[in-house]
Order: sequence, then C-alpha cells, then structure tokens
Amino acid sequence: MGMIAVYPGSFDPITSGHFDIIERAGAMFDTLVVLVAINSTKESTFSCDERVEMIRHAVHAHGLTNIQVDSISDGLLVDYAEQRKAKAIIKGLRAVSDFEYEFQMALINRRLRPEIETVFLMTSAEYSFLSSSIVKEIARLDGDISGLVPQVNLRKIQAHYES
Amino acid sequence: MGMIAVYPGSFDPITSGHFDIIERAGAMFDTLVVLVAINSTKESTFSCDERVEMIRHAVHAHGLTNIQVDSISDGLLVDYAEQRKAKAIIKGLRAVSDFEYEFQMALINRRLRPEIETVFLMTSAEYSFLSSSIVKEIARLDGDISGLVPQVNLRKIQAHYES
Amino acid sequence: MGMIAVYPGSFDPITSGHFDIIERAGAMFDTLVVLVAINSTKESTFSCDERVEMIRHAVHAHGLTNIQVDSISDGLLVDYAEQRKAKAIIKGLRAVSDFEYEFQMALINRRLRPEIETVFLMTSAEYSFLSSSIVKEIARLDGDISGLVPQVNLRKIQAHYES
Amino acid sequence: MGMIAVYPGSFDPITSGHFDIIERAGAMFDTLVVLVAINSTKESTFSCDERVEMIRHAVHAHGLTNIQVDSISDGLLVDYAEQRKAKAIIKGLRAVSDFEYEFQMALINRRLRPEIETVFLMTSAEYSFLSSSIVKEIARLDGDISGLVPQVNLRKIQAHYES
Amino acid sequence: MGMIAVYPGSFDPITSGHFDIIERAGAMFDTLVVLVAINSTKESTFSCDERVEMIRHAVHAHGLTNIQVDSISDGLLVDYAEQRKAKAIIKGLRAVSDFEYEFQMALINRRLRPEIETVFLMTSAEYSFLSSSIVKEIARLDGDISGLVPQVNLRKIQAHYES
Amino acid sequence: MGMIAVYPGSFDPITSGHFDIIERAGAMFDTLVVLVAINSTKESTFSCDERVEMIRHAVHAHGLTNIQVDSISDGLLVDYAEQRKAKAIIKGLRAVSDFEYEFQMALINRRLRPEIETVFLMTSAEYSFLSSSIVKEIARLDGDISGLVPQVNLRKIQAHYES
Repeated sequence: MGMIAVYPGSFDPITSGHFDIIERAGAMFDTLVVLVAINSTKESTFSCDERVEMIRHAVHAHGLTNIQVDSISDGLLVDYAEQRKAKAIIKGLRAVSDFEYEFQMALINRRLRPEIETVFLMTSAEYSFLSSSIVKEIARLDGDISGLVPQVNLRKIQAHYES
Repeated sequence: MGMIAVYPGSFDPITSGHFDIIERAGAMFDTLVVLVAINSTKESTFSCDERVEMIRHAVHAHGLTNIQVDSISDGLLVDYAEQRKAKAIIKGLRAVSDFEYEFQMALINRRLRPEIETVFLMTSAEYSFLSSSIVKEIARLDGDISGLVPQVNLRKIQAHYES
Repeated sequence: MGMIAVYPGSFDPITSGHFDIIERAGAMFDTLVVLVAINSTKESTFSCDERVEMIRHAVHAHGLTNIQVDSISDGLLVDYAEQRKAKAIIKGLRAVSDFEYEFQMALINRRLRPEIETVFLMTSAEYSFLSSSIVKEIARLDGDISGLVPQVNLRKIQAHYES
Repeated sequence: MGMIAVYPGSFDPITSGHFDIIERAGAMFDTLVVLVAINSTKESTFSCDERVEMIRHAVHAHGLTNIQVDSISDGLLVDYAEQRKAKAIIKGLRAVSDFEYEFQMALINRRLRPEIETVFLMTSAEYSFLSSSIVKEIARLDGDISGLVPQVNLRKIQAHYES
Repeated sequence: MGMIAVYPGSFDPITSGHFDIIERAGAMFDTLVVLVAINSTKESTFSCDERVEMIRHAVHAHGLTNIQVDSISDGLLVDYAEQRKAKAIIKGLRAVSDFEYEFQMALINRRLRPEIETVFLMTSAEYSFLSSSIVKEIARLDGDISGLVPQVNLRKIQAHYES
Repeated sequence: MGMIAVYPGSFDPITSGHFDIIERAGAMFDTLVVLVAINSTKESTFSCDERVEMIRHAVHAHGLTNIQVDSISDGLLVDYAEQRKAKAIIKGLRAVSDFEYEFQMALINRRLRPEIETVFLMTSAEYSFLSSSIVKEIARLDGDISGLVPQVNLRKIQAHYES
C-alpha cells in the first residue's frame, strides 16, 4: 500500500493553487487522499458533492492516478488520518498569515495524535495571491477566472454566478 | 487632463487615516478619485450616500480641489479604473496584516489589468492604529472620537450612535 | 491597597493559556482583576455568568487569593480601569497576529487614557497554539480537551457540546 | 520637466526584480532617477561605476528613454531627492520583512522632509524570492543565474566569480 | 524597597524611544534599573561609560528619581536580575520583527529563571521608526537628529560624527 | 533503497530543535541525509568535522538507523540532492522570520531543480525559541545549556567555552 498522506481543505472551490499542491504532494507519496472537510457551522458556496466532483474532474483531466478524493463532515482530521493509516497531513503555505494559523493547527494536531506529522509545501509564487474567496469574488463581479481554477471546472464555477 | 489615480475603500466611515492618504495622494496626482466601493454581500453602518457625502465634506473643508468622490456597487475595481483612464490604484498601508492582504489584491489586479499599477503609501505613524471599525467601536461605547475622524464629520458619526 | 491591574478578555471559555497569564500577572501585581468583557453585538457560546464562574472556579482551585473576577457590558475598558484605579491593563501575546491587533488597541487606549499602561506578557510556548475557539472546535468534534482548559472546568465545557 | 521620482538602492548588482520596478515606475513618472546609493561603511561586490553601468546597459537594452542613472556616496537620500526636485521616492516591496524596514525608513524620511512622498510598488510574484545576495550566492556556487538578472549583465556577473 | 524591574539594552546611544519606555516603566515600578548590557564580541559606537552617562543625563534632566543606571559585561541578564531581586525584565516593542526576537529571548530567560517575568511595553507610535542605528546613520550623514534623542545628549552624539 | 530526503543546515552546533526535526523526518522517509553545509565565506564556531561528529553521536545515542550524516562545502544544495537521488529537502520552521527566508530559498531551489520538493516541518513548540546562536551565547555567558542540545554533545560544547 505504501505511504499515505491526507491533504485536507474546504476546497470551496478547488483553485489552481490547490491543484499545484495536489500534483506535488502526489509525486511524493504513494497515495494522496484529498479530503473535503465540511464544517456544518459554516456556510459554503458549493455543496460537498460538487466540491468532491470538481476535484475528481481536475485530477482525472491531468491523468493523476494515485489521488483519492474523500469528504468528512464534523470529524477530527487526525482521527480520519489515523483511520486511513496516513502518516502525514499536507498543508500548502502561501503567506505569513497562513503560516501562523497552520502552525497553531499543526501543534494542536500533534498534541491530539503525535504519530501523524504535518508536512508543509510552499504554494508556487504564481499562485501566492490565490484563494477560493478571491476566485469567487472575481466570478461574482463577472471577472475572468480562467487560469485561477482547473480548466475543467471553469464552466461549473461561472455557471454558479450567472442568473 | 493629466494623471489620474483611484483611491478605493469602503470608507464606512472615512477616518483621519484615510484623509491623510487622500491629502498625500492628491498632492502626487493631477486628479484623485476617492471611490466608495459597495459590496452588496456585506452589511455596512452608513449608506453609500452618507459615506460619499462625508468624504466630500472633509475634502471641501480642507480646500482640496483636485479630488473627486464616486461610488461603485459590485463592479471590478480595475474595470472602473480602466474606464476612468486611471493609471494607478492607491492603497494605504498601516501594518503587516494590511500588507499581506493588499499584496494579494495587487497581484490579482495586475493579472486582471497589467497596465494599472497599484501604488502604496504608508499611513502616518499617528494613525497606524486607526480603522473604521475602531472608530465605530469607540463611538458605540460613547468614547471620544474627535481627532480620529475629519472634524466636519464628527457630529454625523456620533449622531448615528445616539438614541 | 497596592497596585491594581486589569486582565480583560472574552474568556468564552477560559483556557489554560489564559490561566497561565492570570497566575503570572497575579504574581506581579497586588490585585489582579480578571474582567469578562461582554460585547453585545457579538454572539457568545457561554453566558457572562458561566464565564465568570468558570474563572472563579479555576482561581479558587489553584488557591490564588489576590485575583478578583468581574464583568463589563458595552463599556470602554479604559473607563473601567480608571474607575478601579488600575495602573495597568494586562494582555497575553501568543503570535504575530495577536501582536498587531493588540498593538493597535494599546495605542488607541493610550490615546483615550494616557495614564493607564498596557502591559504584555508572553503566553508560555506550550500554550501558544491555544485559543477559546480551538478548544470549542475540538470539544464540538468530540476530541480530548483535557489540559487545554483548567481541570475544574472540563466537565462544564464538555457538557455544553453533549446532547 | 514633469514629475520626477527617485528609485534608490545598492543594486549590487541589479536583479530582474529591480528592473521590473524600474520599468513600472518609469511608466508612472515623467522622469525616473535610478540612484545607486553607496554606503562607505559597508563592503560591496561591484564598484559604484560597475553598478551604474550595469543599470545603464539594462535600461538601454530595453529602450527605456525616461530613466536616468546616478549615484550618491554617504549623503541623505531625502536631500538628494530635494535637490533633484523629485516628488517621490520609489521602493519595491517583496515580503513582510522588507515592509517593516521600509516602513521605518519611510517614516524617518517623512520626518526629515515631509514634502517628499515614499511610494511603494509590489515586486512581481515571480521575482518575490530574488535579491542581489541570492544572485551572488548562486553565481558563487556556479549555479545558473540567467533570468535572475537582466540578460545584458549576465556575462559581467558570471565573470566576477570565475577565476 | 518595593518592586524592582530591570530595563536592559545596548543603548548605543539612548534614543527618545528608549526614554519613553524608561518614563513609562518608571511610573509602574518602585525602582527601575536601566542596564547597559555590554557584549564584548560586538563592536559599539559609544563606550560603556559614555552610554551610562548619557542615560543618567537624560534621567536627571527629566527629574526622574526612581531610576538607577548600571552596566553589565558578558553576564547573563537573568542572573543580574536575580541578584538585584528584580521581579521583572522590561522590553519595549516597536514592530513585528522586535516581537519575534524578544519572544525567543523571553522564552529562553523563563527557562533559565522562571521566577523572573518579562514584561513588554509598546513604544509610542511616534517613535516606532526609531532605533540607535537609524539615529547614528542620520548623524553620520549630517542629518538633523533633534527630537530623536534626549535633548541633553544631542551635542554629545553630534560631536562623535564631526571631524 | 526507498525514498531519500536531505536535511541541510549549518548545525554549528546541532540543537535539540534540530534533533527533533531529524527524528520526525527520519520517521517519514526511508533514508534521511543530515547535511552539514559549509559556507567558506562565513566564520563558524565548530569545524566541519566537529559538527558532523556531534550529529553522529546524537543519532547513535538515540538508536536511529536510517540517518546518514554528510557535509558539503560551497556547493549548491539542489545539486547535492540530485546526486543523492533525494526527492525532498527538509527544513524546520520555528517562526515567521524563518518562514520568509525559507520561502525564498524554496522558490529559488524550485527554479534551479523543479523535481526536488522542499518540505517543511514545524519545530516543536518547546524548541521554538532555540537556535545555535542562542545556545552559544548562553554557553559563552556560562549559563546552563542542558536540554537545549543533545545530551551526548553537552560536554563538547561547554568545553569550547572554557579556558
């Protein structure tokens, strides 16, 4: 089975920056599980199923074969990772503010399950400005989001903001 | 007509820190358009008209003649700037956290319209602690906000919190 | 009466990191007032009375005798401190993002009442990841929060998330 | 004569990131003076003349016509700017650490000469990792620096590290 | 004897920002010891005696009576504080970069002597740009440093840079 | 042979924080090469051989069997990694300032050799204040460094500062 890692996020929706991390983490681990983490106390733009499907389309379009996509609702990430026998949690860092928050989460996760390591990859410089929120804001204002999200998801996202 | 710059913000309400930037950017460009950007998905304290009027009063009280005040609702800032033939977008920086967010916005705006430059000015040290939220919080708790907002708007803002 | 300091916060609920600051600030000042600050415009998880009571239980369980617990609703912190004849406001710092926000608040408070000093203590490294939100998130997902909050409050907090 | 700005730096040597700022600032001002600032108390890799010449070559190779190159040794930047009747000092920002230092310098310069504004431009994301030191370190270790410095200066820099 | 605090630094030379902290910490503690810490492995501009004398002049000129000035050469700060029966070490914070370094030092000092607390005060906004290095750089370039250092030390510092 | 990673540093000397990263990275990869990187343009406290030996002692004392120790003098890290067929470069992050520098190095290394990934692990909170410089400063001032460096190296380091 080899070494497994989990890459969690809300992916609401997946951006080109997320996909960059998926490709690079996928090259390092035998199996990468992209995990759509649903927080029932927060509103989202896309449903869990839509988010999973968009990630699957992007992964499939790029011919990546060791990537699985799953979702979790209101469960502890480290418990999920334990269950999947994952050795590592993958997080992408873009900026100082990411760093602080992710540092806190890594420390708390290590406290909860010391045997699971949090591993950070740097987002490519060209995507350092990118977030799901910014993609949605531009789409809402009818700006051009091509290049900011995987090509196969472009229509799906734009359709959400048409009326 | 000369060189035009746009200084966007929510200005809910304009603070002495905003006004400091208006005065300094106004001295650098032939025309400065202060742009009240309305985001229909967020709640605001003052209406668009009230915000525009407060900026106009402050600009008029200080005898600044090359400042225009306008508003935009749910449109892309760079499209507005393009339409106004503005060469630059002005942003004020106060602290590291401003820097990160504004850096991201500058990169995304450059991607959308590379010909429009984002130009950053540092807020004066004496206003580095100031934001519209802090002004409103102090006014709500009946604290003294004189000096924190342009003098001509003082009554208008205090009135909002009286009952 | 000696020197008095006020340690304000929302304490929703008190964490082991807060309690670490209480113990250390209590050792430096003759009287330390832990002040539950209620902001009527924000939702909270625990009521003002529950928060005050949890702090009192923790203080009592550790035999600290120069700590008072009080609450304030929609009043200016510096006015409260003035009334209590406090010379200092205590704040705990964990990370860069705390620093920026607290720096702004210290500057505004100095402007409102220059005679009251804001004093910062560093949270112990082992609690640097800890916040009330993280405690609640873990409790909500049924994770183990022992060690993250004062032992005497453990049941009270867990009970809130059981159904 | 139009509006003049000064872009100071040690440019030891000029990188592609510096040149990106030169091009963009040159598009905003009528005249841009690129100023090689020599600090006699610090060691440098290239002589003042070599640094000026490399900038001139790069500017010439790109056909920029409103750029002047000058140098200053142990003089106050704001005095130079005043003498040149410059209205603005241009600085490029790459990262949070730049921001803090440049913020301090902008505040001190405003105190020395309030009529000269410091204007910040964001370095392009693709050059955010780039500095003169990193270029020199890679060249010293015989790595490939093409793309990191203006093409016309490539040989000159590599030659410095050959023996 | 009351509560004693130590305010350590290199004070090479004392700036108006340092003096601001001395005044404010002096108002909070019964005795404040300003400690010139000499690091024999680093070069300095002013001798230990000159630095001590400049602080004494400034303290005397402002009529502060509970301030002592001392120096230490190559000794651990916490050992000095212990010997003086000080309860607290005072540090001034200006910016995020100060914060990180001082946080590390506070943690290491707590490890060495847990009974001594490090207490942070925020430097006034108007001095947030100020450091001994910047004062010296401006003096070296013959700029005006009045207001940046205590008035009584002005001549002494300028004299150092005249020839 | 399995997956190989390289953990580079100056290790002058190895601290408990470094060793924490070695243990955790060693658990994730089949082989971890700890690489003492010598920069001939910088002075060091311990010789290359001493540094390598101290790491070997610490690794041996903890019974880690998949760790190799090597050194490189004035060579590009990515070239070494390529030669060793390493898939990843390991870096430990402690604080925001680490983050910025390491982000820049990761971007430049990706540019030089895109097939080698930089992987970041968070240093344990208890070691977040620790660096080789701080260890040496405390040892120089005759403070207690036990716990700050691997136990087996304690005497070696203390001996360096005795006379």
